[in-house]
Amino acid sequence: MTQVKAYAAHQADQPLGPFDLERRNPGPLDVEIEILYCGVCHSDIHTARNEWGGTMYPIVPGHEIVGKVTAIGAQVTKHNLGDTVGIGCFVDSCGYCHNCKEDLEQYCENGHSQTYNSFLQDKKTITYGGYSTHIVVTEKFVLRVPDKLPLEAVAPLLCAGITTYSPLKHWNVKKGDKVAVVGLGGLGHMAVKIAAAMGADVTMLSRSPEKAKDADALGAHHFELTTDSENMKKMTGRFDLIIDTVSAQHDYNAYLHLLKTDGTMVLLGVPPEMEQIHAGSLIFGRKSLVGSLVGGIKETQEMLDFCAEHGIVSDVEVISMDQINVAYERTIAGDVHYRFVIDMASLKN
Amino acid sequence: MTQVKAYAAHQADQPLGPFDLERRNPGPLDVEIEILYCGVCHSDIHTARNEWGGTMYPIVPGHEIVGKVTAIGAQVTKHNLGDTVGIGCFVDSCGYCHNCKEDLEQYCENGHSQTYNSFLQDKKTITYGGYSTHIVVTEKFVLRVPDKLPLEAVAPLLCAGITTYSPLKHWNVKKGDKVAVVGLGGLGHMAVKIAAAMGADVTMLSRSPEKAKDADALGAHHFELTTDSENMKKMTGRFDLIIDTVSAQHDYNAYLHLLKTDGTMVLLGVPPEMEQIHAGSLIFGRKSLVGSLVGGIKETQEMLDFCAEHGIVSDVEVISMDQINVAYERTIAGDVHYRFVIDMASLKN
Repeated sequence: MTQVKAYAAHQADQPLGPFDLERRNPGPLDVEIEILYCGVCHSDIHTARNEWGGTMYPIVPGHEIVGKVTAIGAQVTKHNLGDTVGIGCFVDSCGYCHNCKEDLEQYCENGHSQTYNSFLQDKKTITYGGYSTHIVVTEKFVLRVPDKLPLEAVAPLLCAGITTYSPLKHWNVKKGDKVAVVGLGGLGHMAVKIAAAMGADVTMLSRSPEKAKDADALGAHHFELTTDSENMKKMTGRFDLIIDTVSAQHDYNAYLHLLKTDGTMVLLGVPPEMEQIHAGSLIFGRKSLVGSLVGGIKETQEMLDFCAEHGIVSDVEVISMDQINVAYERTIAGDVHYRFVIDMASLKN
Repeated sequence: MTQVKAYAAHQADQPLGPFDLERRNPGPLDVEIEILYCGVCHSDIHTARNEWGGTMYPIVPGHEIVGKVTAIGAQVTKHNLGDTVGIGCFVDSCGYCHNCKEDLEQYCENGHSQTYNSFLQDKKTITYGGYSTHIVVTEKFVLRVPDKLPLEAVAPLLCAGITTYSPLKHWNVKKGDKVAVVGLGGLGHMAVKIAAAMGADVTMLSRSPEKAKDADALGAHHFELTTDSENMKKMTGRFDLIIDTVSAQHDYNAYLHLLKTDGTMVLLGVPPEMEQIHAGSLIFGRKSLVGSLVGGIKETQEMLDFCAEHGIVSDVEVISMDQINVAYERTIAGDVHYRFVIDMASLKN
């Protein structure tokens, strides 16, 4: 075991602070990674503060990890010393269930091992995330990161990138498709960039007129206000796909009306309370309301390669580790464009 | 114009009674049909009683119509005198919108003409349904009825049959798929028969143990009680597709949990109030909640041919026209196996 520096929450109502963490020595199939950057996802905050329940303290959050390989096990074939690699939302899964065999580890029927606040497949070793200097992960769950992209801006691709890429791919977005994105945060800004790169005609739907400029800069082709009922009426039946990234309570029916016949609306956010959905909003036009969770390892690699090919990264604000508590407050306030990323050198020194 | 005998509701709170109706003389593309049988759909009751609002009195319900061609216009090519034909839920549509061109007249963007309580495409002539001795319909919306089936039992295929066939077909049910049907009424009993004929492994989900025998007789391979929480848990992740025909308020999340990863739940019933759906019920397992409305004309013909090939008809109780008000009460009470069908000879005499 090796002791590494980390930042942890020790209680739901306490700020995060320094913590010494033990990482296992790399086994035959393991890759040891020196972490360079780790993104700050809203899930980190929910979990650190036990807002979803089930947090095991002390918790080390972080599942948008980019780093360099510093050691490999004897049987590792996918990665070499010095490679630039990434770790996303999970670090292992059963490997033998139907979903794992179909490269859908995110839906592992026996429960995958999330990167933090979860258990390894032995069902007893607790996992600790990327707010730390090093991590050790079995090679299958280590992604190759294309070197041509700025690494601090790649980190959020490992969660926000794949979470939006996966449904855009799965529901077959293609050139000319009309795609709308609801919510302009960490997920929303990636959805706009990726959908545009897929050739879609992208509309940002928003309640805030001041976001029009941001949407344009991100590559959205249109910006439409959802607060104007005449405007909403005008858009009836316009979209093939809507990506809804909002996790605050809101009315889904209004968006379902904007779908074409056979259109699909993808939920990525989980509001604590959902407004009532009317069966008629789905029946009249054979519409689909669907959900999607991150993406599998194979698809995450595909997303990283796609982003490298199209020069897509996240828009980030780099912070030092000791700024994390302020960053949490600013994330909650929506005061970030669009992702905080921790420069892990700040933890090493 | 020709005067024909019919049964109409003159007010929401009055029983249906005899009514003389004027039908247009057949135009060049029209088919005049002597109605032999007309099914009694729950929609008839909702509309007769103005439970959905917008009823234009007097109203003549009925959209599950089977009859014989008694006259054709000069340009009619699809049908001949004496042919056995059917009319379903709509009698015309714009014909030029995207959906009409795709054989999805049920989603006509300019508003299709429903068989009753609606307007023809002139947007001013009110339509009157199948509780009458004759009807005149433009040939495209007249279906060929295979003669080998008992006609009184074919009538409900024109609504209940196509409403269940269409989603089973659209979401690609195939041999071995695990399909569950919720609700054993007019729609549910057809869903069981058609899904079984498509080769699916069909489970009837019900709150009532006494329905097990009926489900078996209809061809369901399994019967499972939804009132037993251990039983529900046992079925977690079991089904590829769930057809939900229930229009009373009920919990959708419990059923969504029974879907496999990438499974689909189809809503056919419209509850006045919907229970809250949890985003997590869709996200964990990339599940789809969808709606479907009847089916297009081409698909309705395909369904009739499929039913003839597989010997599928509705289970019906034949009544005379003057029993309609009792039949309405029994339908509301669920006291029918599974569809009342009016023998229209009873109206002619």
